[in-house]
Amino acid sequence: MIAFLLLFAAAPALAQTPPASAGPADPKLIEDLVAANRILAQQGVLDGWGHVSVRHDKDPNRFLLSRALAPELVTADDIMEYDLDSNPVDQRGRNMYSERFIHGEIYKARPDVMAVVHTHAPALIPFGVVNVPLKPVYHRAAFLAGGVPIFDIQQSAGMTDMLIRNNDLGAALAKTLGKHDAALMRGHGAVIVAPSLPMVVSRSIFICLDANAQAEAMQLAHGGTIKYLDPEEARLINAREGYGLQRAWEAWKKKAMNRQ
Amino acid sequence: MIAFLLLFAAAPALAQTPPASAGPADPKLIEDLVAANRILAQQGVLDGWGHVSVRHDKDPNRFLLSRALAPELVTADDIMEYDLDSNPVDQRGRNMYSERFIHGEIYKARPDVMAVVHTHAPALIPFGVVNVPLKPVYHRAAFLAGGVPIFDIQQSAGMTDMLIRNNDLGAALAKTLGKHDAALMRGHGAVIVAPSLPMVVSRSIFICLDANAQAEAMQLAHGGTIKYLDPEEARLINAREGYGLQRAWEAWKKKAMNRQ
Amino acid sequence: MIAFLLLFAAAPALAQTPPASAGPADPKLIEDLVAANRILAQQGVLDGWGHVSVRHDKDPNRFLLSRALAPELVTADDIMEYDLDSNPVDQRGRNMYSERFIHGEIYKARPDVMAVVHTHAPALIPFGVVNVPLKPVYHRAAFLAGGVPIFDIQQSAGMTDMLIRNNDLGAALAKTLGKHDAALMRGHGAVIVAPSLPMVVSRSIFICLDANAQAEAMQLAHGGTIKYLDPEEARLINAREGYGLQRAWEAWKKKAMNRQ
Amino acid sequence: MIAFLLLFAAAPALAQTPPASAGPADPKLIEDLVAANRILAQQGVLDGWGHVSVRHDKDPNRFLLSRALAPELVTADDIMEYDLDSNPVDQRGRNMYSERFIHGEIYKARPDVMAVVHTHAPALIPFGVVNVPLKPVYHRAAFLAGGVPIFDIQQSAGMTDMLIRNNDLGAALAKTLGKHDAALMRGHGAVIVAPSLPMVVSRSIFICLDANAQAEAMQLAHGGTIKYLDPEEARLINAREGYGLQRAWEAWKKKAMNRQ
Repeated sequence: MIAFLLLFAAAPALAQTPPASAGPADPKLIEDLVAANRILAQQGVLDGWGHVSVRHDKDPNRFLLSRALAPELVTADDIMEYDLDSNPVDQRGRNMYSERFIHGEIYKARPDVMAVVHTHAPALIPFGVVNVPLKPVYHRAAFLAGGVPIFDIQQSAGMTDMLIRNNDLGAALAKTLGKHDAALMRGHGAVIVAPSLPMVVSRSIFICLDANAQAEAMQLAHGGTIKYLDPEEARLINAREGYGLQRAWEAWKKKAMNRQ
Repeated sequence: MIAFLLLFAAAPALAQTPPASAGPADPKLIEDLVAANRILAQQGVLDGWGHVSVRHDKDPNRFLLSRALAPELVTADDIMEYDLDSNPVDQRGRNMYSERFIHGEIYKARPDVMAVVHTHAPALIPFGVVNVPLKPVYHRAAFLAGGVPIFDIQQSAGMTDMLIRNNDLGAALAKTLGKHDAALMRGHGAVIVAPSLPMVVSRSIFICLDANAQAEAMQLAHGGTIKYLDPEEARLINAREGYGLQRAWEAWKKKAMNRQ
Repeated sequence: MIAFLLLFAAAPALAQTPPASAGPADPKLIEDLVAANRILAQQGVLDGWGHVSVRHDKDPNRFLLSRALAPELVTADDIMEYDLDSNPVDQRGRNMYSERFIHGEIYKARPDVMAVVHTHAPALIPFGVVNVPLKPVYHRAAFLAGGVPIFDIQQSAGMTDMLIRNNDLGAALAKTLGKHDAALMRGHGAVIVAPSLPMVVSRSIFICLDANAQAEAMQLAHGGTIKYLDPEEARLINAREGYGLQRAWEAWKKKAMNRQ
Repeated sequence: MIAFLLLFAAAPALAQTPPASAGPADPKLIEDLVAANRILAQQGVLDGWGHVSVRHDKDPNRFLLSRALAPELVTADDIMEYDLDSNPVDQRGRNMYSERFIHGEIYKARPDVMAVVHTHAPALIPFGVVNVPLKPVYHRAAFLAGGVPIFDIQQSAGMTDMLIRNNDLGAALAKTLGKHDAALMRGHGAVIVAPSLPMVVSRSIFICLDANAQAEAMQLAHGGTIKYLDPEEARLINAREGYGLQRAWEAWKKKAMNRQ
């Protein structure tokens, strides 16, 4: 151990030892992660640059994320394992998403979160650049009732190229996210979290639909009242949030996986 | 009989006897109900959580509705029979839509209605949360001329999770619907009714298109006049509402059923 | 002849003799008419209720129009021949579009017109119900530069079910259309005309895109100036309107006909 | 040589000698140009009238552009070679895009540009006809940070049919474009340039998405503040603009080329 420390002190340029694997994840979890990638691409939530991950089922200190590939092309062989510092367990020369730190840092900060989506969905961009809070207009978006914070990278790191390219930036984003289920990223996109892959997929789809609905309601109302979900309604809906999710997930999965 | 009553009094936990079947429905009706599910999913009216039903052709006290499944996946084998209290005739362990009570209670209240759609269509959500009445901008939406009431579940049941999960809530919704052909459900979606499956499908598609058209007309007009359908025009159109419906239904059906 | 007139006077209930056929139309014209139906359906201009026709190449007093069928399903065998009073040459029990009179009356009034589209396209509905003239925002819509009249059936016929169901109503619409290349039909849709099928298809697609573009430009400008096409620019563009049309027509046709 | 000049002086009607070929381009470049055509058509950026070109890899004084064909139909055999005056090297009777001068003149004026797109994309038309500058709302559109000039052909050439049909008009457009990466063409469309085909495809897609996002942000903000990208952020993003492009390009290419 002392020898290692001396080596480490003496030779900082030596490659860090990669983290140990938690072992194979449940094949069904891998299959669902592949499906989540394909569904979110098909549903217009993820473009070539977005990504979705899931916490390893065998070890909360590991998560699974594709190598750097457009979500619509991801297969089981592309899934890589990371520790929560977003170091790859077995890189084998594969390119990694530069913004994997979004996932690792959120998994660190939020033991309740099992799946994370990072998106550039067009529907969310406008809400990230104006002073109009995104709120739940309908029941599918009840998970937004606690508020949707806006992460403005300028406040953490001044002028940047906007990418969450290291742990510090990931931690800053996770701090803004706090206990919420989604955060907008000014001039960039959004991050959405959930206790499962089906739920993070559903939330990612419906945060976009709610954003559209709120924008249209505001236009229609032309300054008049909009009846958003009451906080108590949101609480009751969130208590049964998995309602109907299984049947929607089956349909999304079938449609996404049949069209390779 | 007396023995049964005593048993019933003594053992309220015993399962109620399921209602008797009205016998097999016309296979063509089942086929059309499957098609209606697929068409409405393909046309973007129904997502994984919406549903469509039809009154049984052999008995007005029964209706047909899929088991809890995303509409795009429904097949003839998934169709279940219910009484108007939304009790299943032959459940066989299949999951049921929690909101089947929407259908049963409307069939009770409206002997003229033969088909019901419950939707979360994004186009309708904004109109359910603002004080802007949805009105017919063009002839395809003439069936809205009598008005489109908004059902706000808070008025019937205070704070809830928004689901129509029992007969009382279904009856409250049916009461708001009254004699109208559609009602918006605040923060939830809408319900549309009609004297046939092809017509409820057509109405569900065109209520969405009319909502979009009205929103755009209001934007264009910027406070100026919008010429909605005259009530007499609407009456004359409604008198011939089936015009052209058969050829549209054939095309929708062909497109939806060929793409499994 | 005199005998016929006496018969006609004495027995008005006798079926009128159908008009004589002009003989077979050029098979290529039939093929293009089928393609036009399919293209306009695929491009979202025609729904199950709209239609497109072309003047017979052998006789200007005849036109070709499908039997009453959704445009996406039309084949060569569905094409019927009509005189300009919209009487069928050889009906053979086939259902006819109730609004075929739109086509016949326009062919009567406009010897320059060789093809006609009647559409309910959603993009056009708002402009038909507000006091905002539809104008060409960009070069593809230069054919609108002369103005787009609005036909309000109330002015011709009072309260109706909005359908152009006879020659008188068709003549009223043709009168409003005048020399223009398109007219909106309040609360109904629009009619577009052109000297060829490829051009009427192109015009029908671009009147919709221009409507969207004008609506968005008005929103952006928020009362500020919008630079529409100058009348002289429009004149010069219209003089070369067929530019590039052939290559677009080939692509639309290929895409529409390969997907039956 | 003197004989040729005398002939040229005496007989201006004689055909000019076509320019010499630079030799075969890299087959991969041709393949990418075909893919760019198909991707941009599929992504809704190019209709039947738009086009995309790339500078020849063997000679900066030549560029490659399809014959006059809708982009969705372009194959390797359709690619033609041009000099920077937009004269074809080997026309072989093939029709040429009337507006090829857009490409040639930009390649002349901009040695840094390797690929050019000319589009009529609907999302961009509104910004070309109003006094609202198109600006980068999010990181994908950072390349717009230097400004997006509007080319109004009236200022160069008075009343025209709007087509860039000769070198002078192409040069005028290139002059307005200047050092920018995109220019809007009033009442016509836009031109986008880049140092590679994948990047011009990406920029063409994201200028449209940014236009939509800015329009929606302006609506939401209703006169309030919109936080556009800071110039320094844009500079830093532009410095790493190729980030993730390869994986998006692979996905776009796969999707466009698999569906012939």
